[in-house]
Amino acid sequence: MKRYEQLAQTIAAMIRARVLAPGDRIASVRQASARHRVSPATVFQAYYLLENQGLIEARARSGYYVSDAAPALLAEPSPSRPDRRSTAVDVSELVFSILRDIKDPAIVPLGSAFPSPALFPWQRLHRSLSSADRALSPWQSVGGLPPGDEALRRQIALRHLGAGLRVSVEDVIITDGALEGLNLCLQAVTQPGDVVAVESPGFYAALQALERLRLKAVEIPVHPREGVDLPALAAALKRHPVRACWFMTNYQNPAGALMSEARKRELVRLLALHEVPLIEDDVYGELYFGSAHQPPAKTFDERGLVMYCSSFSKILAPGYRIGWVLPGRFGERIERLKWMTTISASVPPQAGLAHYLASGGFDRHLRGLRRTLEQQQQHMLRAIAKFFPADCRVSRPSGGYFLWLELPESVDALRLHALALEQGISIAPGPLFSAKREYRNFIRLNYGHWDQRVEPALARLGDLIRALSS
Amino acid sequence: MKRYEQLAQTIAAMIRARVLAPGDRIASVRQASARHRVSPATVFQAYYLLENQGLIEARARSGYYVSDAAPALLAEPSPSRPDRRSTAVDVSELVFSILRDIKDPAIVPLGSAFPSPALFPWQRLHRSLSSADRALSPWQSVGGLPPGDEALRRQIALRHLGAGLRVSVEDVIITDGALEGLNLCLQAVTQPGDVVAVESPGFYAALQALERLRLKAVEIPVHPREGVDLPALAAALKRHPVRACWFMTNYQNPAGALMSEARKRELVRLLALHEVPLIEDDVYGELYFGSAHQPPAKTFDERGLVMYCSSFSKILAPGYRIGWVLPGRFGERIERLKWMTTISASVPPQAGLAHYLASGGFDRHLRGLRRTLEQQQQHMLRAIAKFFPADCRVSRPSGGYFLWLELPESVDALRLHALALEQGISIAPGPLFSAKREYRNFIRLNYGHWDQRVEPALARLGDLIRALSS
Repeated sequence: MKRYEQLAQTIAAMIRARVLAPGDRIASVRQASARHRVSPATVFQAYYLLENQGLIEARARSGYYVSDAAPALLAEPSPSRPDRRSTAVDVSELVFSILRDIKDPAIVPLGSAFPSPALFPWQRLHRSLSSADRALSPWQSVGGLPPGDEALRRQIALRHLGAGLRVSVEDVIITDGALEGLNLCLQAVTQPGDVVAVESPGFYAALQALERLRLKAVEIPVHPREGVDLPALAAALKRHPVRACWFMTNYQNPAGALMSEARKRELVRLLALHEVPLIEDDVYGELYFGSAHQPPAKTFDERGLVMYCSSFSKILAPGYRIGWVLPGRFGERIERLKWMTTISASVPPQAGLAHYLASGGFDRHLRGLRRTLEQQQQHMLRAIAKFFPADCRVSRPSGGYFLWLELPESVDALRLHALALEQGISIAPGPLFSAKREYRNFIRLNYGHWDQRVEPALARLGDLIRALSS
Repeated sequence: MKRYEQLAQTIAAMIRARVLAPGDRIASVRQASARHRVSPATVFQAYYLLENQGLIEARARSGYYVSDAAPALLAEPSPSRPDRRSTAVDVSELVFSILRDIKDPAIVPLGSAFPSPALFPWQRLHRSLSSADRALSPWQSVGGLPPGDEALRRQIALRHLGAGLRVSVEDVIITDGALEGLNLCLQAVTQPGDVVAVESPGFYAALQALERLRLKAVEIPVHPREGVDLPALAAALKRHPVRACWFMTNYQNPAGALMSEARKRELVRLLALHEVPLIEDDVYGELYFGSAHQPPAKTFDERGLVMYCSSFSKILAPGYRIGWVLPGRFGERIERLKWMTTISASVPPQAGLAHYLASGGFDRHLRGLRRTLEQQQQHMLRAIAKFFPADCRVSRPSGGYFLWLELPESVDALRLHALALEQGISIAPGPLFSAKREYRNFIRLNYGHWDQRVEPALARLGDLIRALSS
């Protein structure tokens, strides 16, 4: 990273942490140059970058100020307080009516779960897929059989090792995307009727998986910045015969929460105490802004109770449907379930990804992707501050590509969803993210797509919210 | 097809149907030329082909005779008589110990479920994958979302239409191989504890799917030539609350049976009468010998009760893991289950297959593949007649790549499997194919692999059987 980028990151982190508040004057170029021991040109470049990200603004003859709109004028949503009882789950109708919209390119995809495909290195991926496929011998058509392509598993293990997670090639099982991995992990440790702890608000696919496997959900509150509420989890573990937890520790979907390292350690310790397996969904872990990579809870797992799931779908190759599991002590069961349900992931995409990862350039791509998403978050936060009523609350996640918004009490997100769709805009309404259809006045917005349609769409959304809240 | 190939097929069909028995003298070249109104050269070519397939042999100064070894000296296995009660299923341990061997290239893969990868058009597939992937726009990364790639679904619908099955593009759902399709169909129509009718002997993955979904199996006998025993099925439908059937109507695995068109019609009629859905596994349907394409039972389905599943894994592109379902009236449920478990099949392989199918050459490849498999079947039948005890019985399927053998009563197939594996040979022992571990003295052999190791392996296998039966 260049010196000016480092400086910009340092200042951005202070703004995000509210050390610098909206409207605060920041150091002049001369002051900053002296304080950080860099040239004035470097400070100019850093300030230019921050201005471009919407974090600061220059005022004529007066210097630089933290932007009013960023990191967002609006307060963050309140911590959730889900119902403490366990529930049979039924969210599918709602989810499917929303999934259908994703495929329609005419709809502004603020409700989408995917980032814009324009953010990925398709040309490089194509070259890797083509080279790797050409080099495959026919006999390697069985090479993808569980646990999966050896070269790809080695690349994945190497990346984890580089990030401080001790895994070997043997620990990696390739799956058809993270969702299959998560489903297999869940099935490996539960029987129909069992109770599983999930986040509230939480990823709807987790709720669907519970529904499909006829499991019961206990919803654990999620703080919009700190993640799973550990005292609430401890209480639930005492009250319910919880057989597994399915949590997202980094940039949780939809709230955007990041669990601190200390809280992850505590989570692992607490679950080990109760011998409860953790299914850790880390598909957004690589999409961190500013600061360094956040270790997953798996890093602190000494008992093999954490099943770690991730994929390339959100960070490199959507559509390839290649993910992986680090299964802890449940490896054999998960590998067998994979054999029994889909046999193996597709061989050419596995080989293509292995080739891409071995060729270098993945980290450069990721740095660019993170910068873009961080900028787009700022754009969207600014637009929301401009167009939405002032009593809306919005999350300010330090990674991923989702904002979680609490709208005025009187706004029905399902109604908003229907009205927005009539205007060609999709959103993800709050009740999607709860087994009990809570979060009636919440929505999730995706800033992973940013084109000329998004700002006008947000303006229209603001008008609709105002109309519904009056 | 050339004239001489047609003639050879006609004669081969008579031999297979035992109109011509081993040792029978067949028409001289002159007689055949007159009878079939073809030139003597054409008859010579046909006889040469039949000789090469091991079906006939020339005897000096005496003419041509049906080969003693072919279509096999041995009788066919007896029709099965499975236990009529329903059972909870547990075959997995056995299956996994055998699946592990597939990946070891040092083992002669007579127990494998896959044909030799050398039989597939890898170069053409590579060119199609590479061209199609290069042409994909990033936005098509969502194009694979359920029901799947439009171009591929159109090609699949066209092939079915060409074979007399009325389907539209909308009827096709792409899956991660046929096995995922079968699993989704099963889940779409059952709840844990339900009873499902399967074939006995039957495909072990069906038994595993039942086990995984906690369903009970009622095993229906299979005649080695005629397939599912319909009176037995009718009786089972009266005795048990059967919620679905999972049958393989063409070249059933492992017995090789082909249901006639009349019996398929009767099957569809019987199930419609009881409103029981049929999950039809047709992965070997394209691998017919001699005669024409055999319509699946789906062709006769007027009520939308048949869920048809197939894939490219056994006929074109193993390792791509692309299959499809024609879901009848259960389309929405199956599409949703697909979203919930693996989201979609991998996009580049879907696009590559669509490109390959649109470019032509698939039928030529299939003709070559069928010829090769038919020849390899003859080679294996001949070797078995030569090396195995005379009281062994063997199936003579008219398609696919499996032989089903009934060994002398005293031979334990599991013991044979263990001894053979010590000598570097895998076989699939009979108990794999039954929820109740029946078929103790049966084995399935794969003639989809034929290299210089196979004949010596069959000789060793014959010695082992002799040793175990004495």
